[in-house]
Parts: sequence; structure tokens; C-alpha cells
Amino acid sequence: MDSEKAEMQRFFAVIPAGGIGSRLWPMSRANAPKFLHDLTGNGQTLLQDTWDRLQPLANGRTMVVTGDVHARAVADQLPELDFANVILEPSPRDSTAAIALAAAVLAQREPDVIIGSFAADHVISDAQAFHKTVEEAVKVAATGKIVTIGLKPTEASVAFGYIKKGKRLATDTACEVLEFVEKPDIATARRYVASDDYLWNAGMFIAPAAKLLEILAKTQPTLHSGVVELAKVWDTEQRDQAMARIWPTLTKIAIDYSVAEPAARDGEVAVVPGDFEWHDVGDFAAIAELQSQGRKGHLAVLGSARVLSDSSSGILVSDTGRLVALIGLEDVIVVDTADALLVTSKEHAQKVKSLVDSLRESGHSELL
Amino acid sequence: MDSEKAEMQRFFAVIPAGGIGSRLWPMSRANAPKFLHDLTGNGQTLLQDTWDRLQPLANGRTMVVTGDVHARAVADQLPELDFANVILEPSPRDSTAAIALAAAVLAQREPDVIIGSFAADHVISDAQAFHKTVEEAVKVAATGKIVTIGLKPTEASVAFGYIKKGKRLATDTACEVLEFVEKPDIATARRYVASDDYLWNAGMFIAPAAKLLEILAKTQPTLHSGVVELAKVWDTEQRDQAMARIWPTLTKIAIDYSVAEPAARDGEVAVVPGDFEWHDVGDFAAIAELQSQGRKGHLAVLGSARVLSDSSSGILVSDTGRLVALIGLEDVIVVDTADALLVTSKEHAQKVKSLVDSLRESGHSELL
Repeated sequence: MDSEKAEMQRFFAVIPAGGIGSRLWPMSRANAPKFLHDLTGNGQTLLQDTWDRLQPLANGRTMVVTGDVHARAVADQLPELDFANVILEPSPRDSTAAIALAAAVLAQREPDVIIGSFAADHVISDAQAFHKTVEEAVKVAATGKIVTIGLKPTEASVAFGYIKKGKRLATDTACEVLEFVEKPDIATARRYVASDDYLWNAGMFIAPAAKLLEILAKTQPTLHSGVVELAKVWDTEQRDQAMARIWPTLTKIAIDYSVAEPAARDGEVAVVPGDFEWHDVGDFAAIAELQSQGRKGHLAVLGSARVLSDSSSGILVSDTGRLVALIGLEDVIVVDTADALLVTSKEHAQKVKSLVDSLRESGHSELL
Repeated sequence: MDSEKAEMQRFFAVIPAGGIGSRLWPMSRANAPKFLHDLTGNGQTLLQDTWDRLQPLANGRTMVVTGDVHARAVADQLPELDFANVILEPSPRDSTAAIALAAAVLAQREPDVIIGSFAADHVISDAQAFHKTVEEAVKVAATGKIVTIGLKPTEASVAFGYIKKGKRLATDTACEVLEFVEKPDIATARRYVASDDYLWNAGMFIAPAAKLLEILAKTQPTLHSGVVELAKVWDTEQRDQAMARIWPTLTKIAIDYSVAEPAARDGEVAVVPGDFEWHDVGDFAAIAELQSQGRKGHLAVLGSARVLSDSSSGILVSDTGRLVALIGLEDVIVVDTADALLVTSKEHAQKVKSLVDSLRESGHSELL
């Protein structure tokens, strides 16, 4: 067995399946979030696509972390998922709690495990290129690094964070990470893209679980001890009691702040450039663009809509079975559900989030 | 009793309540046409508004001609309507059959009756000015003329037919009619409006029933004898049998072609200029404009919609009780019904008719 094979045998995929996807309201709801929907029109949900994409690397060694209200939907959608590899969150406590608890549980079972965390709601079409990139990331992670995957920007997007590359590492294409930077303004984004020193941060992390926990112990000691305590009793009858006691106390913090950025400052993070198309399909404009594949004037249709369109472009999402007639609308967004209808345009796709915020504030939680 | 009072005592209003209003699909349907809807947001349907507007002139002397499928709805909406004054059409056979049968039935009961025909689906806000105009029209009709009401154009509309005025008659403001002209192109419409010789044809006719029938006897003798035969047995037990036999044979022709235009060529038509706002609310753009009253950026809302709008203008019609969220749309038209949803813009409001045509052709009659 050569060393690369051995490294991949340490690999265990983690799929954090959380977040509602407010910008995709009224399709995405608290009880039917983004990852449970088919946003590509291929007949599978994003969660199923994520699972399938990982299996050639993980061979079933895959853990899903999701809200307890989604347990049934996840089990229905992923019949091959072993329920011993499911973490059900009694409430959302941000990405560090989710990923660190997965790391701690897996490290308790297999001390040398290398985990790879991949969001349940991203779209990647070139699985082979993805596999090659993850394999290299696992190899670099085996040297004791936190490894992230950075996508070569195709435009000066202000919707993503960026990763500043440093010098090349010994293996293949990996580089050290000098810095993670937040979503920039457009001028800064243009400068980043022109410089060739920056990659999009797709939020994928590959690391030895022990290494991730070691960093967390330094940056968030209480959070660290909480997940370690949970992990110790995870595979015992005390799990539920411990979760009820400890989970609500865990600090809510994104893993970017608790692990990735501090580790980058200590020179412990590497990035493997990913050479594949990647979409976080964060809003309806992104879905429309993904579906149209650059065809001008294309109307994307998701769901069971019966549609009658006269020279309209954009996206229609409908699960009501009603006839939907569109006439002469450019870049329109129509989302037709049983209790709520959204009509806007691609230009305003990001504003859906503030609309959802105002629904929450005005007490319309039954629609969220 | 002076002569004007006597003339008004001969007056009998006729309300042809027909036509689906295809440009108002999916709100207007075969089983719920335009006149049964509240398009002004005043809490009354257009039919009820028409009824109320006529009562100060007609004092209950009002006949409604409508499709038999609408009998229940009309009775519910007009509790004061005497069912002896209702003509139920077994099938639509255009405006001549409807109005001429009303004329014949009323003339059978009262040989010197002067009828006034007013569509059930027009909007007139200044009832007093309307009354003054109709009273003058009745006075002119009593001299043996067919009288129409012409509205002073406020713009070079291509959506209406026009009436060419001739010389003034003895009474007040009435003129003879030289010609009825069909919907013109925009250049012609501009010329008409600039010339001051043309008025909009609002399709209102006031005439002695006997005069109207006399003209019809010349232009459409078979149609004439059909309605006269029906009228003779109308108030007897033979009505239903006669309708079943004769109605389906009546020629389908608009009253403009069978009566108004031929009579105008013979110098037998007069026009009374109407000095009131008049809207035929033919499409959703017209309703939006009527509702906005010139306010820029106004969003008109009809029906029970719960609406959340972020800087949108145009019109929303909804009777589903769903939440409708609109973001950043200018001059949008959204019509939300249980089985069909229309989204378009004011610019394309007229195209709704061709969409309905294509639904009919593709066999979706359940949606019409």
C-alpha cells in the first residue's frame, strides 16, 4: 500500500447540511432548506448531489450534520447513509460547533482520521476534477496542515470571500495561505482577480481531525472542551443527555473565525487550487445563470410548473401545479409556492434576504 | 307634466352583461367575466356600479341581458333587479341579438319605450354628468333618432372607435353623426384628436325601441323577425320553447354594424358629447392607470392579497390569500388565482388576449 492510498484511507467526508438559504425564499424554508431542493433540474437534490460526488473518495465514510427537524428528509434522500454517521443538531449553533463535533466524534473513533468538510448546498459539475483536488488536499492535510480548496475566480465577484496565496508547497499545486479576506467591494475584487494572487474561498476544509481540534483548543477552549466531552460519550447511552446539557452552551461562531483565520496567521493553512466550476447558488439569479449556461433570453424552469411563456427570460420556480403565464419579461424571477409568491428580477435577487428579515420582524414566521 | 319629464318616463335602461374580457385573464373567466368583478376597489362589482349609476334615471326600469350561466351571480349582485326584466341568453350571439331582443320585449310591453343600452363593464365616476348627458340623449331620441354618447378624447387612443360629428342639432349640445370609424392607427388617432371633429365611441345607444327595430328590419330582416317573434311570446308560457328554437338561429353581429352605421349613413343618428371620465378598463394596464390616478410609482392592489412590496409599481390582483412579495418591479402586472398565475408588464397588457387564444387552441378550456 503506497502512502497516497494510506492517506485516502484516513479520509472521512463531513457534510454540514444547515442554513436555510434566505435568499431562496419562498422556495427555501426553515422546514425545507436549500440543500433539500433540486436546483439544477437534474432530478436530485443538492444534498444527494453532494453525497454522490463524495462517494468515489469516501466509500460510505461520510457523516452528515443537520438539524434534527431534517432527520427524516435526510434519511429519505440518502438511503445509503449509515445513521451512526449522523449528527442531529437540536438547534443551529453555527459551523464551528457542527464541524468540530463531527471532528471530535470521528477522532474518538479513529484518532488519525482526516476529515473533509463540504457544504450540502453547492453545485460542482466536474466530479473528476473535484476528486483530483480533494485527493491532493488530503495528501497535504496528512502533513499536518489545515487545507482549503480555492477556486480560480472567473469574475470579480463580491459575493465570496477570497484566499490570498503565498509560496508553493512541495506537493503538486498547493500553496500556503497568507490570508483569508472577507467579501470585498467591487474595486477590491477587481484588483484581486487581476493580481492572480487570490482564489475564491469555497468554504471547503480538509484537515486531520486532531489538528483542527488542537487549533480550536487554543482559540475557543470552552467550545473545544464541549465537543470533546460530547465525543467521549457519543457512542454510548449518555449521548442524548449530554447533548441536551452541552449543545445549547456551545459558542456560535463560524469555522472561518475559530479555525481557518487564526491557523492562517500561524502559517498552518494550505490551499489547493480547484480547477472546476463551482456555484454556491446563493440566490435565484445564480440559479438562473447556472441553468441558462450563458444562453441569452433563456427561461429556467424548476419544479412542476406548467408554463406558457411569451418572450420571457429569467427563472420560474413552481411547485403548485398551477399554469404560470409570463409575457415579455426580461430576467424575471417568479417563485410560486402554496402560501407565498415572489416576483422580482435578477437585479434584485439579493434583496430577497431583507424581505425575509422583514417578514420575520413582522411576525410572519409561519411563512419562513 | 312637462315634455322632458314625459320623455324620461318613457326611458328604460338595458344592461347587456356579456363578454368575458379576455385581456383580463386569469381574473376574468368564462364563468366569472369582467362585469362580475370589483375593478375599482370600491367594494362593488362593475355590474353593481352600472346598476346604481342608472337608477336615478331609471327608477328600477332596468333590464339585464346576460348569459344563463350568470343568472345566479347577477341575481345575487342585484337584489333590486326584477327577474321579469332579465333576459338569459342560452349562448352568446353578439350585441344585436341581445339589445334587439330587449328592445322587442320592452316595445311589446310599452310601444313608446325609449331604451338606453349601457355596457355592464365600464367605469364612470361622475354620475351627475352622466345623468345630464343621458337625459339630453333621451330628449333627442324622443325626436325619433338613434342617439349615441361620444366622449371627448383625452388622448390619441387606438383602443377605441371614433364618432365623426356633423352639424349641431336644435337641442343643447347634440350633433348629427356623420360616420362611425373603427379603431384607427396612431397617426390617424392623432389627427382625429387634433381636429376636434371626433369623439370616442363608448358604445352607448339611446333610441325609441320601435325606431331601433325599424332600422333592424331593413338591415337584418331575419334577425328582426326572430326577436319580434320571441317578444310576442316572451311573457307567456311559450317563451322557453321559442328561445330554444329561435335563439340559436339569430345572426351574430355587433349592433354597430346592424344598426348604428347604417342609420348614420341615413342621417338618423345623433351624438351627445359626454363631459365625464369614462373607462372601458379593457386590460390590466387600464385598471392600473385608473387606480393610480396619475400617481407615479403606485402599486394598485385588487382582491384579498397580502402584499409585501419593495419599490414596485403596477397592479397586483390576487384572490388566493397567499402572501405576494414584489421587489423592484416597474409597471408590473401580477394576477394570482387558484389555478393560474399571470406575470407581465403594462407594456404587454394587450398581449394577454393572444395568450388566452393560444390556451384555447391548445385545449386548456378549463382555465378559460
